[in-house]
Amino acid sequence: MANNRPLILISNDDGFQAKGISALIRFLRPIGDIVVVSPDVARSGYATALTIKSPLHYSKVRQEVGLTVYKCTGTPTDCVKLALSTILTRTPDLVIGGINHGDNSGVNVHYSGTMGIVIEGAINNIPSIGFSLCNYTQDADFDPCGPYVKKIVTQVMENGLPAMTCLNVNFPDTPDLKGIKICSQAKTQWVKEYEPFNHPFGETFYWMAGYMENLDPENTGNDAWALANGYVAIVTAKVDLTDYTLNEKMTQWDWSLSENKDN
Amino acid sequence: MANNRPLILISNDDGFQAKGISALIRFLRPIGDIVVVSPDVARSGYATALTIKSPLHYSKVRQEVGLTVYKCTGTPTDCVKLALSTILTRTPDLVIGGINHGDNSGVNVHYSGTMGIVIEGAINNIPSIGFSLCNYTQDADFDPCGPYVKKIVTQVMENGLPAMTCLNVNFPDTPDLKGIKICSQAKTQWVKEYEPFNHPFGETFYWMAGYMENLDPENTGNDAWALANGYVAIVTAKVDLTDYTLNEKMTQWDWSLSENKDN
Repeated sequence: MANNRPLILISNDDGFQAKGISALIRFLRPIGDIVVVSPDVARSGYATALTIKSPLHYSKVRQEVGLTVYKCTGTPTDCVKLALSTILTRTPDLVIGGINHGDNSGVNVHYSGTMGIVIEGAINNIPSIGFSLCNYTQDADFDPCGPYVKKIVTQVMENGLPAMTCLNVNFPDTPDLKGIKICSQAKTQWVKEYEPFNHPFGETFYWMAGYMENLDPENTGNDAWALANGYVAIVTAKVDLTDYTLNEKMTQWDWSLSENKDN
Repeated sequence: MANNRPLILISNDDGFQAKGISALIRFLRPIGDIVVVSPDVARSGYATALTIKSPLHYSKVRQEVGLTVYKCTGTPTDCVKLALSTILTRTPDLVIGGINHGDNSGVNVHYSGTMGIVIEGAINNIPSIGFSLCNYTQDADFDPCGPYVKKIVTQVMENGLPAMTCLNVNFPDTPDLKGIKICSQAKTQWVKEYEPFNHPFGETFYWMAGYMENLDPENTGNDAWALANGYVAIVTAKVDLTDYTLNEKMTQWDWSLSENKDN
């Protein structure tokens, strides 16, 4: 009997045993068949990193009707690539990352392993969505996200997404979600990022620490504002980074090499 | 005596001992004072990845007039963050990544540690440029890039770059460079990405392999075309990934939760 249910590929960067990915699976099982290919341990902050110099391995840890789970030694992006190349027998209808334990709004889109999954899905022309909750703790409460996750996924399935474009969805950490806002990516920046400490033998080491600052706090259209005000923030994200306006300007710059050739 | 020379922060993802970064230093020493903070070993394909769960360390390996070199245990992006937070006493005038041993055109901008450096520079509002040569070998010939690297850097210093925007520059592997083209980011995709092999005890492992395919080969405006035709390809890259056109459309989608709340 042919199976006409949507096929959903899920991954995350907190590892296959994280609470956030379990919640995501629970929310999406009514919508489609799910294959999870997820890092065997937490690999947060891995962005779109690839494993080039070591071989990768994955193994099946669970199989039941409509759900298969693999753990993988790779990065979040490796997981998606391996799933598409070697595990799945057809192209999935959706690639979903998350639900991440922690905020991926603003410039965090660039550091996020969750968004590494989603950008890889978009590069492969599959509608792709990353979900993140602004709570880093292992036992964060993902239940309030459920109805929104389902709504956003079904809307994407109904309307589609343009090629090479994906979604970055962040939830504020509150049970009283005020609804959905379509947002721009906030201009944010990390500050006080390193905490130095001395090794017993004298050398200085640094731990990553700090916090993300919103550089445009008056702007009510960005995801930082939406999250600070209790809204679910959906930000669109393009795989094509080209700044076409700047391209146009730069064609007018002086590109003659004469003066430099003598140096 | 005050030093008014430009301060240039350099990093790469091939490690501080790579031939490509030595060439870059050589090309840029006439232009400014250089501080190198670079991975202690090669960390290619690290994208904008961060080291969150281990402490980082760096040490000075060389100091002479106008040049200081540090090696660092972190990712390329960690190197830039540590330099800006803990090493440099003033904000650099430029952040430069490379010269990478290998092609960072098309979608490789997302996987590239070289561009991880440059995106981090742009997030910090510093004019930033990544340079890459389409030759992966350790002894690649970077000399033909010299006059172009100098020209591009001096043009960026003269004209500036908009906030949160950086440049991805790729060189074809030829001594006969035909000049500079301002390009869009080609729609490319990796194919045949994994080579399976069996461990002596029976399990399958996968090596990353394959090659990048240009999905839009007729387009003479993108970097894949420029490189295939002997031009130096400059692609602009925005830190803000928002697709404002799609944002506008998505505000019209049905976001009411009623039907889902019962699930």
